[in-house]
Amino acid sequence: MVDCGEGTQHQLRRFHVKSSKIDHVFISHLHGDHYLGLMGMISTFHLNNRKSPLHIFGPPGLDEIITQHLKYSHTQLKFPLFFTRTTTEGKNLLLELENLRIYSFPLKHRIPCTAFTFEEKYRQQKLIKEKIVGGGMAVEEIQSLLQGRDVINTDGSIKYRASEYIKEPVLPRKYAFCSDTVFDPSLVSLVNGVDLLYHESTFMEADKDRAKLTLHSTAEEAATIAKNAQVKELLLGHFSVRYIDLYPLLWEAKAVFEATHLSEEGKTYAIK
Amino acid sequence: MVDCGEGTQHQLRRFHVKSSKIDHVFISHLHGDHYLGLMGMISTFHLNNRKSPLHIFGPPGLDEIITQHLKYSHTQLKFPLFFTRTTTEGKNLLLELENLRIYSFPLKHRIPCTAFTFEEKYRQQKLIKEKIVGGGMAVEEIQSLLQGRDVINTDGSIKYRASEYIKEPVLPRKYAFCSDTVFDPSLVSLVNGVDLLYHESTFMEADKDRAKLTLHSTAEEAATIAKNAQVKELLLGHFSVRYIDLYPLLWEAKAVFEATHLSEEGKTYAIK
Repeated sequence: MVDCGEGTQHQLRRFHVKSSKIDHVFISHLHGDHYLGLMGMISTFHLNNRKSPLHIFGPPGLDEIITQHLKYSHTQLKFPLFFTRTTTEGKNLLLELENLRIYSFPLKHRIPCTAFTFEEKYRQQKLIKEKIVGGGMAVEEIQSLLQGRDVINTDGSIKYRASEYIKEPVLPRKYAFCSDTVFDPSLVSLVNGVDLLYHESTFMEADKDRAKLTLHSTAEEAATIAKNAQVKELLLGHFSVRYIDLYPLLWEAKAVFEATHLSEEGKTYAIK
Repeated sequence: MVDCGEGTQHQLRRFHVKSSKIDHVFISHLHGDHYLGLMGMISTFHLNNRKSPLHIFGPPGLDEIITQHLKYSHTQLKFPLFFTRTTTEGKNLLLELENLRIYSFPLKHRIPCTAFTFEEKYRQQKLIKEKIVGGGMAVEEIQSLLQGRDVINTDGSIKYRASEYIKEPVLPRKYAFCSDTVFDPSLVSLVNGVDLLYHESTFMEADKDRAKLTLHSTAEEAATIAKNAQVKELLLGHFSVRYIDLYPLLWEAKAVFEATHLSEEGKTYAIK
């Protein structure tokens, strides 16, 4: 889960998301709309007798906030809670899972704030069947090739070169989540080539002064980052309540970067 | 406002309650379902450029929690926020307004928790018209009688005795709000004769063991307090999610105390 505003639990129930599936929560910054639902979710996990660990990643201070809430509600959590502080210095590896690396890097907002990228380590490759069938390969060797990795002999030489057994290589996917940020061209290199970029677009160009003042971005600015970073698709979000109709924001972005979408509550966006 | 769980802002909007009308918030205790909506509401007041003061009454620790949230979101509130700590020692006058006194007193729950009573100081009386009209009374004198107060001469003697000018006396109204509490007969004297008693009824008698264990009450227990305290009406609330149909709780209470109601989201209960 990335960010957890007030009412997130309610939305999880509404959209039939099993909250027991949530093991990792990444909080970008400590403005209320990005984290005020976290304590309620933790409390519910506790009341529901959760046993599995919960890992939270967020800015310094969030650990204190959580501790204080637990202290005053006299709560001894029934599950282990691990907290990792993010920093606003450089790109950092926060977490490495079996097939995923998650990084944070700083955004320019009114308070310490980070973006997150979710980067697959490998992708299941499509093998050339004729070369595999009857080749006498071990299961582990095929699995290695499926992940795009060469099979290595004990003496270090290459036994099977993955590129020779793979059809067209399938590249690992990358997703970048840039929550609240002013227009910041230095993001371009950090999100370069990702498959999906979520970038806030609180305002339209007509309200650009307001965007600068509050350290937010316009739809056009989000699209400019997407275009210059040559990402595959752009997802806009964090719209100001002043806009009743969101399509003008979409059109504004599409004029710069065609493959843009509006994020809609409850909708799922698959990364191809 | 009494208590402020997660999503309270959402409910205010849903039921068209003007949040700008809220000047005083009373928090009974620091379990999440009673206060986790407070920070979001304060943030919204701030973002909406609220200017008028907000007075919060709650247990020790809530002040620290608020301060910490404001610190980490770098928020300098645009309105004055006053905080008064409640205590779990005896009945205390928290606030006196023009025609209202608000008290707190302790409840027996797993963490420090208080009830609140809202007590009118006077009620507009119905005067006997024939005795007033043409009697040469000053406006202030009539206002005094309307509030049920005698008019006193400068020498301390009674000029007009209120009881002589009043039809049937109208008594000031009292409302008691008992949030989370185990069945506690000592409440009877504290809520004696109130016009409306809100009393939690998390469970039914069939789940009485669970009620005792978690320091909550059953519907029958709430009704027993209402009956012994000779209150006019009882409002049940804080129902466990295990009960899909709430009418059995109502029937259980009504068997002991007939003038019982279920609290329903968004419904207004007038105190006669």
